[in-house]
Amino acid sequence: MTEPEYEDSKEVARLNRAFYQAFERLDLEAMQSIWLDDPAIKCIHPGGETLAGRERVLGSWKMIFEHTTRIRVEIEDLSIAMLGEHAWASNVERVRAPTENGIQVTEMAATNLFRRIDGRWWMMLHHASPIARRFFPF
Amino acid sequence: MTEPEYEDSKEVARLNRAFYQAFERLDLEAMQSIWLDDPAIKCIHPGGETLAGRERVLGSWKMIFEHTTRIRVEIEDLSIAMLGEHAWASNVERVRAPTENGIQVTEMAATNLFRRIDGRWWMMLHHASPIARRFFPF
Repeated sequence: MTEPEYEDSKEVARLNRAFYQAFERLDLEAMQSIWLDDPAIKCIHPGGETLAGRERVLGSWKMIFEHTTRIRVEIEDLSIAMLGEHAWASNVERVRAPTENGIQVTEMAATNLFRRIDGRWWMMLHHASPIARRFFPF
Repeated sequence: MTEPEYEDSKEVARLNRAFYQAFERLDLEAMQSIWLDDPAIKCIHPGGETLAGRERVLGSWKMIFEHTTRIRVEIEDLSIAMLGEHAWASNVERVRAPTENGIQVTEMAATNLFRRIDGRWWMMLHHASPIARRFFPF
């Protein structure tokens, strides 16, 4: 990675973190300010279908926030690849949420895509899926 | 989309299709020729963890092919976004596989990323997750 790419990747890591902070804070305004305003944006929640466009993507976050009282998301194994004016972040989400039987911890594999326009980064894809099994026992 | 972008997106659609054909044919050589040789490549199978690098990614396909006798994958709702020298394909995979109780049909949401090097396209990410529920009842 070149020096400017490294600086850019730090910007992307910051936005990736801001995305999970908006999720933890159930902050719809922050979430709205992170997502690109483009019909091509997509969001796939764990176990969910592909939601496309700002109305459906942000509508789904609104619905999630309305049905969540408390959630904590730890990010692990973050890797960022710079793709010119786009960036691809991959990480594990360790999600803690209260249930009737105590705190439930689940792990998700996440793919996030970002796009830079006039120097500012925006989210264009969030794809998260539950990790049910390990492929390799080593 | 400009005319050259449209032509490029057809190339990407062709490689995306070739990927699913390699899967259906359980053809490891074809699969090897589709994936980029780069430690940054990643593959997330339905319910699986993130596999990174050529050895793990292609190792997982080898394992899947060894344990599969017959599979059919129909692609629906394909959309392709050109990201400069990269491309992002999003589609539903309708997977049919024989089980003890007859043919099982499952639907996956898939995110595929591609990269062009010297005019040739390569796969760098496959992320597939089972669709268990619809977010919006309309």
